Amino acid sequence: MRSKGLMAAAVGVGLLLTGCEKAPHTKAIREAVSTDPLPSWNEGPTKKAIIDFVSQVTKEGGPNFVPEGDRIATFDNDGTLWVEQPNYTEAIFTLERVQQMAPDHPEWKTKQPFAAVLNHDAKAMAASGEKGLMQLLVVTHTGMTTEDFGKTVTAWIGVAQHPRFKRPYTQCIYQPMVEVLKYMRSNGFKTFIVSGGEQEFMRPWTDKTYGIPREQVVGSQIKTEFKEGMLMRLPQVDSIDDGPGKPVNIGRFIGKRPIAAFGNSDGDQQMLEYAAAGPGARLAVLVHHTDADREYAYDRESKIGRLAKALDEAKAKQWVVIDMKADWKNVFPAVAP
Amino acid sequence: MRSKGLMAAAVGVGLLLTGCEKAPHTKAIREAVSTDPLPSWNEGPTKKAIIDFVSQVTKEGGPNFVPEGDRIATFDNDGTLWVEQPNYTEAIFTLERVQQMAPDHPEWKTKQPFAAVLNHDAKAMAASGEKGLMQLLVVTHTGMTTEDFGKTVTAWIGVAQHPRFKRPYTQCIYQPMVEVLKYMRSNGFKTFIVSGGEQEFMRPWTDKTYGIPREQVVGSQIKTEFKEGMLMRLPQVDSIDDGPGKPVNIGRFIGKRPIAAFGNSDGDQQMLEYAAAGPGARLAVLVHHTDADREYAYDRESKIGRLAKALDEAKAKQWVVIDMKADWKNVFPAVAP
Repeated sequence: MRSKGLMAAAVGVGLLLTGCEKAPHTKAIREAVSTDPLPSWNEGPTKKAIIDFVSQVTKEGGPNFVPEGDRIATFDNDGTLWVEQPNYTEAIFTLERVQQMAPDHPEWKTKQPFAAVLNHDAKAMAASGEKGLMQLLVVTHTGMTTEDFGKTVTAWIGVAQHPRFKRPYTQCIYQPMVEVLKYMRSNGFKTFIVSGGEQEFMRPWTDKTYGIPREQVVGSQIKTEFKEGMLMRLPQVDSIDDGPGKPVNIGRFIGKRPIAAFGNSDGDQQMLEYAAAGPGARLAVLVHHTDADREYAYDRESKIGRLAKALDEAKAKQWVVIDMKADWKNVFPAVAP
Repeated sequence: MRSKGLMAAAVGVGLLLTGCEKAPHTKAIREAVSTDPLPSWNEGPTKKAIIDFVSQVTKEGGPNFVPEGDRIATFDNDGTLWVEQPNYTEAIFTLERVQQMAPDHPEWKTKQPFAAVLNHDAKAMAASGEKGLMQLLVVTHTGMTTEDFGKTVTAWIGVAQHPRFKRPYTQCIYQPMVEVLKYMRSNGFKTFIVSGGEQEFMRPWTDKTYGIPREQVVGSQIKTEFKEGMLMRLPQVDSIDDGPGKPVNIGRFIGKRPIAAFGNSDGDQQMLEYAAAGPGARLAVLVHHTDADREYAYDRESKIGRLAKALDEAKAKQWVVIDMKADWKNVFPAVAP
């Protein structure tokens, strides 16, 4: 219902100002918000599981107490903190960059996966798979300094809009998850992003958007070379932060086993396994996209964010599975007028 | 003078309790300490340069003000935060592990660099060079989980003693540098170790020793594999965090250009260049080991911690060079009785 309202309203100049959730105005609502750390969550077992976990690990003297420095929580980004449909935001950025760069690369007209992009041939693009995506990432993400790439990303993300929700991608984040991030941090957690997205695509905006600084963003990595005081991005992928690569990179970057991990797809399965396999209280959470009206509904058959094996493991191991439709009162943040 | 006293005293049961600096006891000294953030530093241009830099970047509204999140300071470890002579502490750990493992590896008796270790053949060991050291690192540092390796390191570092100073290696740290770490942190800096040492060799003790948590320790890396909820350390070096590898890893792990960097050898040259090449106030510092009495004196000709090119660049670019003998009132921390 909400999404139809959004789409209908998202025409013309006022598109960011209408159809979005309004901040609560009455005194009663303000008071409820101030005492509830997760106001965008409906009451129920999911919300309770998150609050119970945080209460347990922060209860000094309790059996599951965890010292502050060990309160590490890791969050996937695409599909866990922000929308990943109809395509990964970084993929959309990449496609637009290919279009912009095409005049300097006439050979792309007949070379896949570039031709697919230029011809808007979704089928050929899909056929080139993850490998094709990585080729596009390399040509669009490399050959400049990290600082210059950051400027390109910042400029793009400042103007690009989600095709359905007609709002900036940094507003297509899940308000309930932003509340979890803040709630955990206010309870002494250090929150990290551990995403398949490329690190430098995320770092320019994660602090402002999620309160997660650059040094707490782990992602896939492009090789760099130090040259004349600058880091040059080389046309080579260094590490893909997905699947078993996630716990490996958590070990490398963070060096601590998370006590809580949040994901939404099979690419997050090993990260959740790694968090869950430690001693004491553990929180392994999957965002299950069940809300076609307000966002999207997909899991086992989706090309983006496929959730099958991890969903089975979640059921077998009693991980927490967020039912977006049932558990989330709001999906997106209110956009300030 | 001090070192001879230390060595003579370091015999028998009381070795940790004698010959070391005592904590200041008089009221006057306590008061001086409480107002001086760097009490182990003699007054002079070096101390002044550090304090001036911190004052500038923290002065709100000033021309060189840096927001708190961007106050990143990186520190080499060996020779910058703790003693690296007569050999890197990790090398000593490695040699002792080879001795312990030798019974299970009869082939090492005739195979370099292992034979050199078992025969205490310093010349053959030196001849095997950095490559030999890496071979030894691989056999002694891999084939177990990161958690089990951490336990091995913790056990060793709890009992091992420096051959000359006869105190634990974690007490062979430079008190003036510990004061710099604390001083910078109390001024909103985030302090990172960026060392050639292997990450998991440092992480078990850096928090207690320097106040630097595991996730802020960047070093050389051993490849790991995720298996049954654990990270297994594979017999393969992933990245060597030295020379140009330091700025590359700073970009990868921290994602911010440091505004201050501290090193002591040519392996730190590019890290200092990277920090110094940014805009605004910058602090690039070399620890110059000039104190054979209290610690060691070495630079251009040293096999460990060679300082030649970086010293020339420091002079040309007016980086801060710490003269250990002249600038440091104390070298090591007082050991609590």
